[in-house]
Amino acid sequence: MIAALEARYDPALAEPWDAVGLVCGDPAEQVRSVLFAVDPTSAVVDEAIAAGADLLVTHHPLLLTPVHGVPADDPKGRVVHRLVRAGIGLFVAHTNADRAAGHGVSDALAAAVGLVDAVPLEPAAAPGAGLGRVGVLREGISLGQFAEQVAMALPTTPGGVRVAGDPERLVRTVAVCGGSGGSLLAAAAAAGADVLLTSDVKHHPAVDAAEVPGPALCDVAHYASEWPWLPVAADLLHRDLGGQVQVTVSGRRTDPWTFRVDGRLRR
Amino acid sequence: MIAALEARYDPALAEPWDAVGLVCGDPAEQVRSVLFAVDPTSAVVDEAIAAGADLLVTHHPLLLTPVHGVPADDPKGRVVHRLVRAGIGLFVAHTNADRAAGHGVSDALAAAVGLVDAVPLEPAAAPGAGLGRVGVLREGISLGQFAEQVAMALPTTPGGVRVAGDPERLVRTVAVCGGSGGSLLAAAAAAGADVLLTSDVKHHPAVDAAEVPGPALCDVAHYASEWPWLPVAADLLHRDLGGQVQVTVSGRRTDPWTFRVDGRLRR
Amino acid sequence: MIAALEARYDPALAEPWDAVGLVCGDPAEQVRSVLFAVDPTSAVVDEAIAAGADLLVTHHPLLLTPVHGVPADDPKGRVVHRLVRAGIGLFVAHTNADRAAGHGVSDALAAAVGLVDAVPLEPAAAPGAGLGRVGVLREGISLGQFAEQVAMALPTTPGGVRVAGDPERLVRTVAVCGGSGGSLLAAAAAAGADVLLTSDVKHHPAVDAAEVPGPALCDVAHYASEWPWLPVAADLLHRDLGGQVQVTVSGRRTDPWTFRVDGRLRR
Amino acid sequence: MIAALEARYDPALAEPWDAVGLVCGDPAEQVRSVLFAVDPTSAVVDEAIAAGADLLVTHHPLLLTPVHGVPADDPKGRVVHRLVRAGIGLFVAHTNADRAAGHGVSDALAAAVGLVDAVPLEPAAAPGAGLGRVGVLREGISLGQFAEQVAMALPTTPGGVRVAGDPERLVRTVAVCGGSGGSLLAAAAAAGADVLLTSDVKHHPAVDAAEVPGPALCDVAHYASEWPWLPVAADLLHRDLGGQVQVTVSGRRTDPWTFRVDGRLRR
Amino acid sequence: MIAALEARYDPALAEPWDAVGLVCGDPAEQVRSVLFAVDPTSAVVDEAIAAGADLLVTHHPLLLTPVHGVPADDPKGRVVHRLVRAGIGLFVAHTNADRAAGHGVSDALAAAVGLVDAVPLEPAAAPGAGLGRVGVLREGISLGQFAEQVAMALPTTPGGVRVAGDPERLVRTVAVCGGSGGSLLAAAAAAGADVLLTSDVKHHPAVDAAEVPGPALCDVAHYASEWPWLPVAADLLHRDLGGQVQVTVSGRRTDPWTFRVDGRLRR
Amino acid sequence: MIAALEARYDPALAEPWDAVGLVCGDPAEQVRSVLFAVDPTSAVVDEAIAAGADLLVTHHPLLLTPVHGVPADDPKGRVVHRLVRAGIGLFVAHTNADRAAGHGVSDALAAAVGLVDAVPLEPAAAPGAGLGRVGVLREGISLGQFAEQVAMALPTTPGGVRVAGDPERLVRTVAVCGGSGGSLLAAAAAAGADVLLTSDVKHHPAVDAAEVPGPALCDVAHYASEWPWLPVAADLLHRDLGGQVQVTVSGRRTDPWTFRVDGRLRR
Repeated sequence: MIAALEARYDPALAEPWDAVGLVCGDPAEQVRSVLFAVDPTSAVVDEAIAAGADLLVTHHPLLLTPVHGVPADDPKGRVVHRLVRAGIGLFVAHTNADRAAGHGVSDALAAAVGLVDAVPLEPAAAPGAGLGRVGVLREGISLGQFAEQVAMALPTTPGGVRVAGDPERLVRTVAVCGGSGGSLLAAAAAAGADVLLTSDVKHHPAVDAAEVPGPALCDVAHYASEWPWLPVAADLLHRDLGGQVQVTVSGRRTDPWTFRVDGRLRR
Repeated sequence: MIAALEARYDPALAEPWDAVGLVCGDPAEQVRSVLFAVDPTSAVVDEAIAAGADLLVTHHPLLLTPVHGVPADDPKGRVVHRLVRAGIGLFVAHTNADRAAGHGVSDALAAAVGLVDAVPLEPAAAPGAGLGRVGVLREGISLGQFAEQVAMALPTTPGGVRVAGDPERLVRTVAVCGGSGGSLLAAAAAAGADVLLTSDVKHHPAVDAAEVPGPALCDVAHYASEWPWLPVAADLLHRDLGGQVQVTVSGRRTDPWTFRVDGRLRR
Repeated sequence: MIAALEARYDPALAEPWDAVGLVCGDPAEQVRSVLFAVDPTSAVVDEAIAAGADLLVTHHPLLLTPVHGVPADDPKGRVVHRLVRAGIGLFVAHTNADRAAGHGVSDALAAAVGLVDAVPLEPAAAPGAGLGRVGVLREGISLGQFAEQVAMALPTTPGGVRVAGDPERLVRTVAVCGGSGGSLLAAAAAAGADVLLTSDVKHHPAVDAAEVPGPALCDVAHYASEWPWLPVAADLLHRDLGGQVQVTVSGRRTDPWTFRVDGRLRR
Repeated sequence: MIAALEARYDPALAEPWDAVGLVCGDPAEQVRSVLFAVDPTSAVVDEAIAAGADLLVTHHPLLLTPVHGVPADDPKGRVVHRLVRAGIGLFVAHTNADRAAGHGVSDALAAAVGLVDAVPLEPAAAPGAGLGRVGVLREGISLGQFAEQVAMALPTTPGGVRVAGDPERLVRTVAVCGGSGGSLLAAAAAAGADVLLTSDVKHHPAVDAAEVPGPALCDVAHYASEWPWLPVAADLLHRDLGGQVQVTVSGRRTDPWTFRVDGRLRR
Repeated sequence: MIAALEARYDPALAEPWDAVGLVCGDPAEQVRSVLFAVDPTSAVVDEAIAAGADLLVTHHPLLLTPVHGVPADDPKGRVVHRLVRAGIGLFVAHTNADRAAGHGVSDALAAAVGLVDAVPLEPAAAPGAGLGRVGVLREGISLGQFAEQVAMALPTTPGGVRVAGDPERLVRTVAVCGGSGGSLLAAAAAAGADVLLTSDVKHHPAVDAAEVPGPALCDVAHYASEWPWLPVAADLLHRDLGGQVQVTVSGRRTDPWTFRVDGRLRR
Repeated sequence: MIAALEARYDPALAEPWDAVGLVCGDPAEQVRSVLFAVDPTSAVVDEAIAAGADLLVTHHPLLLTPVHGVPADDPKGRVVHRLVRAGIGLFVAHTNADRAAGHGVSDALAAAVGLVDAVPLEPAAAPGAGLGRVGVLREGISLGQFAEQVAMALPTTPGGVRVAGDPERLVRTVAVCGGSGGSLLAAAAAAGADVLLTSDVKHHPAVDAAEVPGPALCDVAHYASEWPWLPVAADLLHRDLGGQVQVTVSGRRTDPWTFRVDGRLRR
């Protein structure tokens, strides 16, 4: 099981600071049912227990900051206690899943928004691997239409799809990066992208970007940008193990925002 | 002029990494007209030139990363060239304005959303100075009502007001921090806040916050959270100089986002 | 329970790099039986499970190097899994127990080898707290006799009691430090000690020590030097909790050495 | 213009800490007249303005320490203001000019003092490039004669030519380094130099050098050691641009020392 | 002389932090008699002076921590004064002797305990060079018998031979490292060693080792583990110099421990 | 002897990176004759041996960069060997002598050039101690006259006295710093100095200084600036020891420059 996951999402592709692999659970135990989710939150653990899963695979690490203990009165330690007592393992594929070739997080995002011929924005050594993807739409559309398409393709979240750019701008070449990919803007510009679709873009880089020619920015919920990877990874594991294991994609939206209110005057 | 500004926004209150004070222009020259803006963008420079301003005061630094030159083919160098040629100075009050007592960025935000008895969340040595503010609403309201009130009080932006929390939660004690204030969450919790209003909150800290009891989160545009300071600082300077200097608040919205599209509410 | 332990062994006394406190378990759960040991080895966990303990208190940390996960195929992760499944908490008092006043690790060692009027060698701010202890024997004896006395007072281990010094040297003032205390030699010399009793002393500092006047060295097993603290801490907790909790000292020798062979020629 | 300068003085040859290239001015503007100087002092700026130059090329950076602003009440900011207002660009070729092959700062110095077959002392990857030069005089002369020759060949400065070595020593192989090149002494010794000619040599390295066999030291004004590069670079640019641009070498001596007084007793 | 030593023990093999080579003495002076010892203690200096040696070769550095002076009231400065006044040089071969191929410190230890076909545990670039050695015994024996054999083969010291492991365990493949080699345990495990013989192993790594399958540990005096190198290096130098120089191995045991006392076997 | 020197030149006043105190020699030996010099060069050692001195006191350290050995084929090791064999100690008072109150290096320089009421430029905690001195001339003179006076007061060296400033500038308040004191320019300006007299001033700080109002610069040989301290310290030691010890100031000029050649005043 672990071997199958690591064959697709090689830990060697992860950043040095990352925390991937098995967080708890025993690799020697039999696994019949796997649940995939973006974040290992307590609600996702509830779901895993209710579903009788043996293994939870998440994109985000539980213990990114390393710990000296996992006491049950700490939220992350509580997750460990509940999983260990329920006999459920937790496996993380994070920046290795971001970089993996063919079935990575940005591959899934690129496919979800309709890109073809997508290649890594910041290539790694292995062919097809690397951060972000850049590809083309089958036909050019306006930035406004592109944003509509993104909103249709990804899970709906309270924050919606924010865009920095002229809605009439023609969009053909598109760069995407699941998660926080604002730092790939220069690479997107170098690749001739008309827009960079990513998440968690803050004020200062977006203001700086607007001061120079270059790609428009399209910002969605971090969760929404990574969600498309879940069914891709789940199906892949199911096939790699010859259909012997049951896989499920979590139904919990782990985007933390619960609602939005707009001002009266849209300018 | 510089002396009047620094008397209110003491450079000694700025962070060590910050870049406040006079960026260009000659303190020996006469100033009759001052324009206030959040960001020193090229559009704001257009406005300053068109308005015949002698001094531009912005909250955000032009040269936060220090430079070895200001050539005109670089966007920031171009701003310097245009200002120097037009005879307009640029003065920055950033983290010193954030921390200043009584007329600081978070004071203005706290007043805008109706807080009373606001005190610093992370106090500095000088009385009343420090990062963020915590105060109380005149009466308790629901989190949903609070978000509506915030949306009414601040400039409207495409991103609107995002909230993480139960809309029915009762809100009385409110923490605010203009700009990127997510790191003040622990201080807000310690101060007993029901909600923290700030901007640029990313996925991971918001997910972690949702896993423990504590304040709800209310996230607005960085620009919107700092805008209320502009008329406060402008009026203060006008009064401090005995009405001798004309002050104007910029009409340009420097929030970089231009539009938003929402999903169809699939779930 | 945790409060009672931390009242005696204040975590604030621990080194910044140390990893003390609750490693696993839930502070909200009831504790009736506590086992004390020097090291959280798998044999000690066997004993805790067999004895039906609810809490294991050890001197050495399980996770001194912080971790990104506690998978069951790692020896330390396996300890966590076994404890969590058995419902046993693990609490560590390490350098805070070394420094604690009156009932600390070096206090217990000093008492075991017959010192009186012992005070800290390297005092901390709190009265009576600090690293190491220096005190006096009731009457002066030879270094050889002192070593015999140490061998009698501490648990027997294969390594025995090694001494660097003249067996006829008169010993009256004695410095002790439970655990690896070779770095306290200069403090012991400054305190006028005739001998420093500690453990894990390596070749180079011992050779350097022999080149200058100063204390003799007496080196015992690390485990042996810290063992005397176990009954002290156990009794203290029992009394502090009004006798409501059952306390036991582990019977497992966690000194890693299993046997010793000597050469033919004793010189 | 910038392209022509960077073709000869490749910025990639500069040290990582250096600050070369365009400091102010717009590369899009037409340049008819260029002034070359060692330092961008206010007197040199006076000269550039008086001469109607469009571009000032200096060897030393204006903003070696990067800045957060260029206010006019700071001497370096004042230079920027005066140049921007006068429409004069400032271009710096510093350690890239030191290392450049064939027409670099040390090439010019080597030629000025009569060396032939000069090659880099500390070679860079590109052929002929590197720090310092070592070559031979057409015939061997005494160290005293060499110093006379240096004094004749370089601009006269109050400090003159200081020598550490026996005036009768025979000199044939000569190492030179424009600017502060004392750290190249070991390389000069390894290259078999009889003397190292450079500037800004301090007491301690000179005393250490006198304690071992090796090259004599010949120390001139930093300005004087770099001046010979100015006409070389000016002519080169003139030729590279097909004679379309007027080039001038500054007449201002930017050596900071204004006079010298000697003691009575020459020993 | 120095050249002969450095031909066998290339200083380039030493660690960057090490302090090998000539500590005092003049390489231009004639050497007729060389004394070899593990440590440059004052007793060894007494012996060198009494024996009329011209050069002392030690394995351990005198000045591992670099110094600003060698005053005679400091023990190490005193050694320098005594050697300089007696006209005796001091030469150190430390981590270069550890790593040297064929005649290194661990080669000598491997041979002393009866290993054949020994190769480096942590190979360096040069063939046969590297840290530690792993080889095989001519026939498998029990761990208890192996410890007996070690005790017979090495100088007897008060600490004896400490073993962590089952005395009945079969031992065939053996890893050795002269000096403090506990950090080579993982390499020894990877090489399939049944036991690692080294010195200065502390409590924590030995406890950790006991929690996983892997080599047993056999810990001897640091001095004893390095002593076998002395006659090897002495003979080698004698032969390399065509028998022209007299070589002697020091008779002083520089193991700092003087005696041992055992407990009464209470458990 | 050492105690008398350290009473005047407290090692606690030295910089953390400095290397003061006894470099070689035995504090237990009797001293009858002491030689004072600026640098411990081989020529100064010749003089000490020839003069039969027992102790050499220098201002500059022999081993500022700490060493792992003092072999005789290294120039500094050779100095150690020669001193140890001749039975001469070496004592260094460097930055502690710079900072010492009343009889320090800059005190001696201030007195030599005629300053009165001199106080530290950069005060240390102890009264009268600190780096540099600032005082006044008994009457104002021109900068040219001041330079003449400096040239008369200090040992003559080939480099003479270089000045950056207008020879007619009136000089009354004078800052001085023995050795390399260019970094004290801002302190000299803050103290209202008309000129800073020091040594080893390089091109860049001198050019920067000329661009702003502030003190003129007067640069002499490093050796010349520190020489005046030698007779002061020698007399002081003689008196402190009740005239029991013979003191001598070295006659060797350790300024490394041997001659100077001037240009023909071409401009």
